[in-house]
Amino acid sequence: MDEGRPRVEIEYCSQCRFVLRASWLAQELLFTFTEELGEVALIPGTGGIFEVRLNGERLWNKKEAGRFPEPKEVKQLIRDRIAPQKDLGHSDRKDG
Amino acid sequence: MDEGRPRVEIEYCSQCRFVLRASWLAQELLFTFTEELGEVALIPGTGGIFEVRLNGERLWNKKEAGRFPEPKEVKQLIRDRIAPQKDLGHSDRKDG
Repeated sequence: MDEGRPRVEIEYCSQCRFVLRASWLAQELLFTFTEELGEVALIPGTGGIFEVRLNGERLWNKKEAGRFPEPKEVKQLIRDRIAPQKDLGHSDRKDG
Repeated sequence: MDEGRPRVEIEYCSQCRFVLRASWLAQELLFTFTEELGEVALIPGTGGIFEVRLNGERLWNKKEAGRFPEPKEVKQLIRDRIAPQKDLGHSDRKDG
C-alpha cells in the first residue's frame, strides 16, 4: 500500500446485512479511483450505521441523510476532495 | 471501528481485474468473522499481486502459493490466529 494515498472507510451495520451494499460501494469506488485511493476498508458496525469516511472525514451518514447514498454521490464527494480535475463520466453532474 | 480488533488486508492487482475476487473474499471473511474482525481493507496494487495479510502478517501470496486461495483456506488461517475455538462449519477440515 502507498501510505500516502487516501483511505476510505465504509462502516456498516452487519446485523442489518448492509455488508453487500458496503461491498458494492467499495467496488464502485475502487473501479473509479483505482489510481487515487490507497485502500477502501469495510468495517462491521452495529445500530443501523452506514457511514462513509475519507481520511477520517465523514462524507455520508445514513441517519443524518435519511437514506443511503447513490455511488455517484459518494464518488463526487471523494472526487471533489482528492481529484477535482477527474471526470466521472456521464453520470457526473456538476452543480453551479 | 474497534481499534483493538484485527485488520485484514487484501492487496490485489487492479490491472488484472482481481478486484472482484478480492471483494468476494472480503465478503466471505466479513460474514464469517463479523464479531472478530475490526476491518477488511481492499488495497489496489500492481504486478499481478494477490496477497492476504492479517495485522501485517502475510497469510497468502498468490505468487508464492502458485494459485489463488479458496476462501476456506484463508478462513482457516485467520481462525487459527484470532479465534481458534471457532467452528467454520462443514467446509472445515482440521489437520492432525
